[in-house]
Amino acid sequence: MQLTETRLTDSHRPTLDQALEAIRTRGYWSPHPEHPKAYGESAPADGLAAFEALRGTRFELDQPGTDGWAGGEISPYGPALNIEYPQVDPDVLLPAMRAGLAAWRAAGPELRALVCLEILSRISARTHEFAQAVMHTSGQAFMMAFQAGGPHAQDRGLEAVAHAYAEQTRVPAGADWSKPQGKRDPLELRKTFTATGRGIALVIGCNTFPTWNGYPGLFASLATGNAVLVKPHPRAVLPLALTVRVAREVLAEAGFDPNLVALAAERPGEGIAKTLAVRPEIKIIDYTGSSSFGDWLEDNARQAQVYTEKSGVNTVVIDSTDDYRGMLSNLAFSLSLYSGQMCTTPQNLLIPRDGVATDAGHKSYEEVVGDLAASMGGLLGDDARANALLGALVNTDVKSRLDGASELGEVALPTRKIANPEFPDAVVRTPVIVKLDGAKPEDEAVFLSECFGPVSFAVAVDSAEAAVELLRRTVRDRGAMTVGAYTTSRETERAVEEVCLDESAQLSLNLTGGVYVNQTAAFSDFHGSGGNPAANVALCDSAFVANRFRVVEVRRPA
Amino acid sequence: MQLTETRLTDSHRPTLDQALEAIRTRGYWSPHPEHPKAYGESAPADGLAAFEALRGTRFELDQPGTDGWAGGEISPYGPALNIEYPQVDPDVLLPAMRAGLAAWRAAGPELRALVCLEILSRISARTHEFAQAVMHTSGQAFMMAFQAGGPHAQDRGLEAVAHAYAEQTRVPAGADWSKPQGKRDPLELRKTFTATGRGIALVIGCNTFPTWNGYPGLFASLATGNAVLVKPHPRAVLPLALTVRVAREVLAEAGFDPNLVALAAERPGEGIAKTLAVRPEIKIIDYTGSSSFGDWLEDNARQAQVYTEKSGVNTVVIDSTDDYRGMLSNLAFSLSLYSGQMCTTPQNLLIPRDGVATDAGHKSYEEVVGDLAASMGGLLGDDARANALLGALVNTDVKSRLDGASELGEVALPTRKIANPEFPDAVVRTPVIVKLDGAKPEDEAVFLSECFGPVSFAVAVDSAEAAVELLRRTVRDRGAMTVGAYTTSRETERAVEEVCLDESAQLSLNLTGGVYVNQTAAFSDFHGSGGNPAANVALCDSAFVANRFRVVEVRRPA
Repeated sequence: MQLTETRLTDSHRPTLDQALEAIRTRGYWSPHPEHPKAYGESAPADGLAAFEALRGTRFELDQPGTDGWAGGEISPYGPALNIEYPQVDPDVLLPAMRAGLAAWRAAGPELRALVCLEILSRISARTHEFAQAVMHTSGQAFMMAFQAGGPHAQDRGLEAVAHAYAEQTRVPAGADWSKPQGKRDPLELRKTFTATGRGIALVIGCNTFPTWNGYPGLFASLATGNAVLVKPHPRAVLPLALTVRVAREVLAEAGFDPNLVALAAERPGEGIAKTLAVRPEIKIIDYTGSSSFGDWLEDNARQAQVYTEKSGVNTVVIDSTDDYRGMLSNLAFSLSLYSGQMCTTPQNLLIPRDGVATDAGHKSYEEVVGDLAASMGGLLGDDARANALLGALVNTDVKSRLDGASELGEVALPTRKIANPEFPDAVVRTPVIVKLDGAKPEDEAVFLSECFGPVSFAVAVDSAEAAVELLRRTVRDRGAMTVGAYTTSRETERAVEEVCLDESAQLSLNLTGGVYVNQTAAFSDFHGSGGNPAANVALCDSAFVANRFRVVEVRRPA
Repeated sequence: MQLTETRLTDSHRPTLDQALEAIRTRGYWSPHPEHPKAYGESAPADGLAAFEALRGTRFELDQPGTDGWAGGEISPYGPALNIEYPQVDPDVLLPAMRAGLAAWRAAGPELRALVCLEILSRISARTHEFAQAVMHTSGQAFMMAFQAGGPHAQDRGLEAVAHAYAEQTRVPAGADWSKPQGKRDPLELRKTFTATGRGIALVIGCNTFPTWNGYPGLFASLATGNAVLVKPHPRAVLPLALTVRVAREVLAEAGFDPNLVALAAERPGEGIAKTLAVRPEIKIIDYTGSSSFGDWLEDNARQAQVYTEKSGVNTVVIDSTDDYRGMLSNLAFSLSLYSGQMCTTPQNLLIPRDGVATDAGHKSYEEVVGDLAASMGGLLGDDARANALLGALVNTDVKSRLDGASELGEVALPTRKIANPEFPDAVVRTPVIVKLDGAKPEDEAVFLSECFGPVSFAVAVDSAEAAVELLRRTVRDRGAMTVGAYTTSRETERAVEEVCLDESAQLSLNLTGGVYVNQTAAFSDFHGSGGNPAANVALCDSAFVANRFRVVEVRRPA
């Protein structure tokens, strides 16, 4: 055994302690560098070479129950990856995954956490390779694939491990219990408390953020003593396949059964998630994706704890601002980043039809929309910068919605096709802004549905009060991962806050600088609230981990 | 306002701190005296008088939406209580309950906890009155009604408040976040984090332990910022009606809306729980009772978090012992207490048909069963002691099962009718032990079903290994609130422990003294595990409270 507990403790216990402190104080912290250069001179070339070496190969994992090979990933930047991954026979794989559970349970919360940190640490060392894998499955631009797919995803994984460790150790490993009995001898018991996983957890990955959205559930379940079966989105397998491979290596080196983590690939359209999700061995499911399948999981996988992040309708209320230019540039960036293909991207901008007060004078609804369109035009006017910001459209569904946007209402900002000189087949488009009227029922039917991708709606509303009321209905009925608001009015600010408190939505107020409503920082910001229809969990809190394990008590006379 | 925050802090913050320490260390602790005499010389007479004064009255609560009156409680000891309680119009009551939520949220976790402690403290002061109410609705004998319905229930309520406070305060109220940007100014945000309740919680009470099983959910939900609607079992309304009245008084005195806690009574057979449980305003449900209705709630109340304690089949493995007499007397007490009407009472005693090794020599299956029957005969031979231990049968369903037990197999210990001189109409019966064969499928069908009440099965099994395997199947398929085992074999002990860890059951080993498998102590023991079919929660852990609230973050430029 190469990975001794001592070595793991020396390597990772300080990091775990820092993570535990970070989730308690929620200031800025990350052990994973954001800058590509921090990974060494040769890292970019090495990462690219490693990625290229994977293309056209069969991705061996040496899992039991391998039952054929599947793979059809085509990079949103054009090239087919031509990688094949193992398909699984659940009747063979799932019992094999259970075989290592007792030893994993016996390892205890600290050793499990340290093993998870070793996995994350090896992933971190290969961040450039993961960046390529994320870029060529999600369509994110390189820098975003690097940061969101690398350090930020690793942060979210580590955050989940810290929460898992903290929750499992709230109960002591043992206790001596002595109850006085007056003049008689006290009643005395020796009690032991053991955190026990629930069984096998299933992680159902998504197309757009395979690591960022996959790691919290994966590491939360693993750290709490469960085995984890990873079922990636068929268009974004590689980042999670690499993750599974690293996890299996580390588990084996630390003396555990590598089958505690396994991969289940599928052919596009095969839909094995439905089959796996209702298997009796599956006790936990983490899912990111459409509301329809998320709702199906919640309704049908009744044998499992089901944690879902689904769709929502994100709103920004624009009431007034003392930094008009800052607001416009901040919003322009938020709407453009990754072509609006983030679950956190604003969709509806609620703007009073009488206009808004700004430090640059009163601006009519038309002016605000026009100025925002101009700001986006400026931001994306340079093709190189546009490519670096937009990435590529992840799939044809997104392109179809973009193409159809002009039929939804008056177009304030049309889309523009951007050429990508490095990847000529990449589909790169600037976002569209469509003007809608909040008072018209036919418009409301449009803006109260999620239109995932680079389409936003500038919704004219009667007043700030009407905006707040529409915000409330939107969050309550449609869910929201994010809410933003710009206001200099203490009254409006308070009203927006009350709506977010009442309806459980995370609020960003008056962002005009380099922080954007659609970005959250692990250890400090919550991603989602778990309290509105967009998601039944928040990343990451106690509730995200506390029910992935149970505590079993054994008591005996002292 | 009489109850200022300062006064509440002075009165209860030290107790809260002790409770927080107790759930962390899990040693013995309780602030609620177990001895009736601890409540003062006149307390017994005062409590009885207060109870008697309630009989034959209308229980006014001054709730909005009162829509008629219902009540038909008849004491298992004979007398009708003749108390009427408010029936409710949910369309009026539920909006009124929501009205106070924003102020209750703004109070914050500490003040909410202190208000809950004041409620518990006032209930504690009236423990003798509650004891009468519990005795004459559940049929518990006075001492048990006093202890389990009084201090032990209050302990479980306080334990839930402590967990609720701890979980809500894991996230700080605010944080300053500063992210370095190399040579540029750091990104800086001011963040606030607010624990927000989910809305209205519904507590569905049970017949046997209205306060003990009702308080954890009630106080967990209230302390996490929710309003709580209490729907008692129609045969056990009074203890919870008194609780609701105290809660409303305290809330009002502390300046909060008393409608944050309300009562919904019903006529027997009316079934309003089904109507209330699926109301969109109901976001949390706590339920103790039959598996059939628990399953219905889990399947149908999809808008709510549903916490259930349902039925199970509790097992004791009897392999060997070095204290045969202690084992027999301990088991005899466990089977007799409250006529076996506890969700934690053992049902199946698994005994190798070749017998067991004991300090009194080898004992055959027949001898063990006979000696246990004799031990119970001795324990319950004196009518006064039998009455004090057995209480009364809670309802006719239990009596029917007892009457039918002799048809299930050979009776090793027949039931005996006990006269209660104080309450001649009380139905008091000693428990039955029926011999069954673990190898016979027709017997298995009997002992693998819950037979709630004073019926236990002495199941002959082929070996200790067979007992362990049957234990595993029982817990996995039928659930268990408790598991007991007697063994001097390290191997068998380890095997039983592994089953309990695998299948998530709480285990008591070799209890031969004054601690019984069916009793748990708040702050130290878990009641249920939440990991097998008997219950989806444990009392009390992080998972029991962590999802009753969400944390809403507001971030703004620093």
